[in-house]
Amino acid sequence: MAKRGVMEVSLIFPEAEVIRRYYRGLIYLAARTCYSEKTPQQIWDEFVSDKVPPERVMKLIEHVVESGHHSTIEHISFTFAISGVSRALSHQLVRHRIGVAFDQQSQRYVKYKEPPYVTPPTISENPEALAEFERLRDESETVYHRLLEMGIPAEDARFVFPNAVATNLIMTVNLRQLIHMAGLRLCTLAQWEIRQLFKLIRKEVMQADPYFGKLLVPKCVPLGYCDEKRNEDEHCRIRPHKNSVFRVWELYKQGKLKEVE
Amino acid sequence: MAKRGVMEVSLIFPEAEVIRRYYRGLIYLAARTCYSEKTPQQIWDEFVSDKVPPERVMKLIEHVVESGHHSTIEHISFTFAISGVSRALSHQLVRHRIGVAFDQQSQRYVKYKEPPYVTPPTISENPEALAEFERLRDESETVYHRLLEMGIPAEDARFVFPNAVATNLIMTVNLRQLIHMAGLRLCTLAQWEIRQLFKLIRKEVMQADPYFGKLLVPKCVPLGYCDEKRNEDEHCRIRPHKNSVFRVWELYKQGKLKEVE
Amino acid sequence: MAKRGVMEVSLIFPEAEVIRRYYRGLIYLAARTCYSEKTPQQIWDEFVSDKVPPERVMKLIEHVVESGHHSTIEHISFTFAISGVSRALSHQLVRHRIGVAFDQQSQRYVKYKEPPYVTPPTISENPEALAEFERLRDESETVYHRLLEMGIPAEDARFVFPNAVATNLIMTVNLRQLIHMAGLRLCTLAQWEIRQLFKLIRKEVMQADPYFGKLLVPKCVPLGYCDEKRNEDEHCRIRPHKNSVFRVWELYKQGKLKEVE
Amino acid sequence: MAKRGVMEVSLIFPEAEVIRRYYRGLIYLAARTCYSEKTPQQIWDEFVSDKVPPERVMKLIEHVVESGHHSTIEHISFTFAISGVSRALSHQLVRHRIGVAFDQQSQRYVKYKEPPYVTPPTISENPEALAEFERLRDESETVYHRLLEMGIPAEDARFVFPNAVATNLIMTVNLRQLIHMAGLRLCTLAQWEIRQLFKLIRKEVMQADPYFGKLLVPKCVPLGYCDEKRNEDEHCRIRPHKNSVFRVWELYKQGKLKEVE
Repeated sequence: MAKRGVMEVSLIFPEAEVIRRYYRGLIYLAARTCYSEKTPQQIWDEFVSDKVPPERVMKLIEHVVESGHHSTIEHISFTFAISGVSRALSHQLVRHRIGVAFDQQSQRYVKYKEPPYVTPPTISENPEALAEFERLRDESETVYHRLLEMGIPAEDARFVFPNAVATNLIMTVNLRQLIHMAGLRLCTLAQWEIRQLFKLIRKEVMQADPYFGKLLVPKCVPLGYCDEKRNEDEHCRIRPHKNSVFRVWELYKQGKLKEVE
Repeated sequence: MAKRGVMEVSLIFPEAEVIRRYYRGLIYLAARTCYSEKTPQQIWDEFVSDKVPPERVMKLIEHVVESGHHSTIEHISFTFAISGVSRALSHQLVRHRIGVAFDQQSQRYVKYKEPPYVTPPTISENPEALAEFERLRDESETVYHRLLEMGIPAEDARFVFPNAVATNLIMTVNLRQLIHMAGLRLCTLAQWEIRQLFKLIRKEVMQADPYFGKLLVPKCVPLGYCDEKRNEDEHCRIRPHKNSVFRVWELYKQGKLKEVE
Repeated sequence: MAKRGVMEVSLIFPEAEVIRRYYRGLIYLAARTCYSEKTPQQIWDEFVSDKVPPERVMKLIEHVVESGHHSTIEHISFTFAISGVSRALSHQLVRHRIGVAFDQQSQRYVKYKEPPYVTPPTISENPEALAEFERLRDESETVYHRLLEMGIPAEDARFVFPNAVATNLIMTVNLRQLIHMAGLRLCTLAQWEIRQLFKLIRKEVMQADPYFGKLLVPKCVPLGYCDEKRNEDEHCRIRPHKNSVFRVWELYKQGKLKEVE
Repeated sequence: MAKRGVMEVSLIFPEAEVIRRYYRGLIYLAARTCYSEKTPQQIWDEFVSDKVPPERVMKLIEHVVESGHHSTIEHISFTFAISGVSRALSHQLVRHRIGVAFDQQSQRYVKYKEPPYVTPPTISENPEALAEFERLRDESETVYHRLLEMGIPAEDARFVFPNAVATNLIMTVNLRQLIHMAGLRLCTLAQWEIRQLFKLIRKEVMQADPYFGKLLVPKCVPLGYCDEKRNEDEHCRIRPHKNSVFRVWELYKQGKLKEVE
């Protein structure tokens, strides 16, 4: 059972077995349909009757992913149950608009008995800050319940809830959008909580299918460089900064760099 | 094997067994998450351990569908293989933008040996028209192959292909968008070919799960009336025309209609 | 200048003069392009040289709006500045995904000196509730500033901010989506704050162009009936309930209603 | 007046004067709203009363464009009239789904007197191919008219129209999507016709506002490298290939490249 205010992510659908049997096939099917005179039914029959060597399937999938033929990976989706995230996170998360569906616990309709809370690490690591935070948190819960008792509707009483109050979501997202979201949210510059969420999402996908899990990386990995606006010296070293890469390239092109023996 | 130029639709994913086990549960999960203090993981555990009576699941699903809480039905999707439809149809079909993914046979990249064709019924039923149509169809195929032989690239040779040339698609669509598309395309005023496509789509869904199949109806069915711009006397009688319904309502409100014994 | 915590909406772009000169023309252009052998350039030249009588323009616009040919009204957009709305409202507002763009004041990046607040009317009308609310509001502001002083980053200190803290947004939305949003949010069942927002939006559009303003109505108005799930007797009377309308229609069809002399 | 079958693009809305007065301001407004405690109304008032130096506006715009804060450029849109493009092109063009609206000449509803055609350059430059192409083109036009005379409805007669038949569109697109589309379609590997379309679109935007026009470039320009799947030696030289850039970077990092004096 989920603990109060602890972030938890579960891959609800599909189960690993369904992913294993169908998901690579669906991408293969979508890609082959584009380039073949065969009907998709013929292509799929070959796939499900194991007439296509798995290496050939994987080779085509890797090709479409790397070459940016990303419509093909919109056909497979993952549904996650997410609990114990702050409303600060959820407000940010639901800004994603395409290839993704959300349902979220409603503060209008749920009358909370004891709402769970998210505590930022910078606060939990600072005893003085934590004391202030917990005092306010308890106070807001008390006021919330008093307002309900006075007959204020839940949809108005929740105006006193802080951003720290945890919320739950169901999120269904296709692979194309999931790669895009992970690319942004796994960046070391992303807000700490949403980054943690995508680490848990990656872990869940990795357990179900390591090939798909490995596609969930910060955007600098497929790009080859970091393109965030920051001082090159400060940045996180997952990949070199764009400016560094192209400074070297410019020197090379101008003949100012030579191979050493 | 698919016959040349015959429209075929297959529900590729998920198979009926997966739909039966999970799809109602996913909608139930999404809806309950909104209104419950429980985490989605708790709600899902109850569902998969059969602690929720199926009637209760269905009652909630019917409620969210009827009440327009349609975000909940964006979590389930269907992937169809479509073959033997004209490029006239596909140009129209891919205008749908939301909650739907397409991959389509490419006339740029496929060098056709013998492209299949779609013949409109008004033409196949008229021998004189059919003769003209078939002559032109064969002629365009001949010219296509001659252009290829002259070294014209396939992406330019296809400029001679008529709209009647058949194409294949993979379409993945969530239930919300599928209901919307069916609502438009099953209307008796829709173009005959795309209407036929959605009849086949409905048949496939119906076979996999009759509850979801029955949701695929012309939009007049949930609306209760036909709102197309046409003469009331001409229209198709699936539902009364909006104007008729409200003319009766106005008379009733003005006290001009009375119950007869 | 905007007052603290008072909701304000301004139509920023385009100004009334630009709307007057171009917006009807753009819808006319889009609709005529679909049905004419003329090029859109020819159609537009006729429009801007005043060769098309304004009545003909309006007749075509009214036709496409009523007949549901709504792609044509996606070509015109409105940009609003919105201030003094709660984060409860904004979290709901940004769930709209299509034909709409948002930028919002960031609680991660803005270090607030004195954040404005929104007070729900049910609270401001209840002195006891208001006292609790204001005490908590002031307390959370104090804690926020203390956390900042302790070196907690703004993005974490804001975890203590209640939903009542006001935020600002820029929203650009095309007419199709604006009509859809207004249809939902002007319903008397909508949350009071978002309903107030759309009343102000309608007022702004009305001032700039009454024709477009009048299109912003609760969804029951174009539907002809209320389709919300509620007891027929309780509902708001803008339009009759769907069930009432069709009960009368059924009686009429069965011959149980007759015209009285 | 548009010539038969000649591609023409016109920026219909807004006119250059409106762009000049408002479009930079709208991006500035959206970006500042995110980072300021001021209301957007205050920010806009400062802008329209010329209290913000144009250099400061431009600096912020350049920052958000380069740093990828692209929600801010979704607030400005451009409406183009497009004529004389093939249905091969339009079928591809309307696959863009987000931030873009289309209306297109309907082959269902328009009964063509003399449809214009697009001739691929590879065909027009080859007299033998051109003769075949023109013969088929004329033949399909003749058959189309004969089918109409036999009473076949226009929506079925058009099944004989080749992809080469020209069509007209109205396209409204926000700046974010326009940059994305231009990035793909101005690539030297894009299909020749759609590439020509985007050259004309860039020309129109450039005339109205060179700053926005200059943002419309092949995607390799902002990326810094070409990431298309092709042999490095074959590629177009607008930018170096990704593999080349990172081969040099790897050598450099391994200390195998040294600066020469």
